[in-house]
Amino acid sequence: MKRFITFEGGEGSGKTTQIKLAADWLRERGIPALSTAEPGGTPLGRKIRELLLNRGSWTIGAEAELLLFAAARAQHVREIILPALEAGQWVLCDRFADATLAYQGFGRGLDAGFIRTLNAFSAQALKPEMTLLFDLPVEAGLARAKKRAAGGRPEAAEDRFEQEERAFHGRIREGYLSIAAAEPERFRIIDGAGSVETVHREVCRCLEALPQLPFLEGERA
Amino acid sequence: MKRFITFEGGEGSGKTTQIKLAADWLRERGIPALSTAEPGGTPLGRKIRELLLNRGSWTIGAEAELLLFAAARAQHVREIILPALEAGQWVLCDRFADATLAYQGFGRGLDAGFIRTLNAFSAQALKPEMTLLFDLPVEAGLARAKKRAAGGRPEAAEDRFEQEERAFHGRIREGYLSIAAAEPERFRIIDGAGSVETVHREVCRCLEALPQLPFLEGERA
Repeated sequence: MKRFITFEGGEGSGKTTQIKLAADWLRERGIPALSTAEPGGTPLGRKIRELLLNRGSWTIGAEAELLLFAAARAQHVREIILPALEAGQWVLCDRFADATLAYQGFGRGLDAGFIRTLNAFSAQALKPEMTLLFDLPVEAGLARAKKRAAGGRPEAAEDRFEQEERAFHGRIREGYLSIAAAEPERFRIIDGAGSVETVHREVCRCLEALPQLPFLEGERA
Repeated sequence: MKRFITFEGGEGSGKTTQIKLAADWLRERGIPALSTAEPGGTPLGRKIRELLLNRGSWTIGAEAELLLFAAARAQHVREIILPALEAGQWVLCDRFADATLAYQGFGRGLDAGFIRTLNAFSAQALKPEMTLLFDLPVEAGLARAKKRAAGGRPEAAEDRFEQEERAFHGRIREGYLSIAAAEPERFRIIDGAGSVETVHREVCRCLEALPQLPFLEGERA
């Protein structure tokens, strides 16, 4: 069984911290786990990420932004995710197709039908088995992201997305919740407002509840 | 009336030389003409072109390549082509959506139906009024491209596309001809094997034959 699990959420939702803890937790149980991130999970993706962070003098329209994320995803799936799954690794991915629908669809207002078609193409039909959505109020997330930026991560401070207006982030949160509501069997909504430890315990509960979890078989024996 | 004319063809087909001559020819007749090229027609597009020429150490799969071209096109249409057309300029474009179908569809074998959907999105529904297809045998085109590369244009020599096998370029030629056959009212197939001057005269004949050509109205008066 292939295990592809995605971590989704808005700015400051804590998913990047949680994905690392989750991968460590799996590895401690003898499960080979890879944690990777979009858009920068491949050398091409890191180049695309640089373009998207837009520290140069170029303009990026909403359509081009959408297609750059899709290009990074296509390479990520082909070069990293599919080979790791084939090799029997668990893959935990920090943002995937749902992020595109939430940010570029609900956030920027681009056509959701086209985005779904584009997502299926760039993901080469790969779908997550489970998606953890870290949800918290927009203000709380932006405050965290700002604190992180001030704490010696100047690149985060310049991120175009964090500079967007509050309404944009509100649309993204609503978008994520609506995507999750349409696929309740795939999504687990996790309250992102808790402490790192509290949220991590919730993540572990979600992982433990997966069917046929190999290490649980062993622990039960 | 908006004048959007695209120049298409394989490697060494002469379209880049011809587009400059055509733009000059229009300007000499008092027609404001802009000649522009894909994928590098915008600052973002030039960055994307650098990624595609692949002088670094990253891998680009067929899907990512397709989406990078589409991203460059979306920005090109929004930032350059539509504003120029709105301002009353003629726009002559070196490669457009047909190139994506020919290279990534017929050449790389990606799904043509998806490419058409993607093209419509990235072109923001803009379609050329007329497309000049510069056709010539693959060997002749590749020989020209090689000669150009040896003549002090090292960047062209490294172009990934020119290094592709002959069969790939054969599929592109057949692809272009089949796209043209499906839309005979839009396409003009020009024999690209002739001299620069002969081909230029043929291009001028195509431009002169456009309905309601403003300078012809004047010349006839």
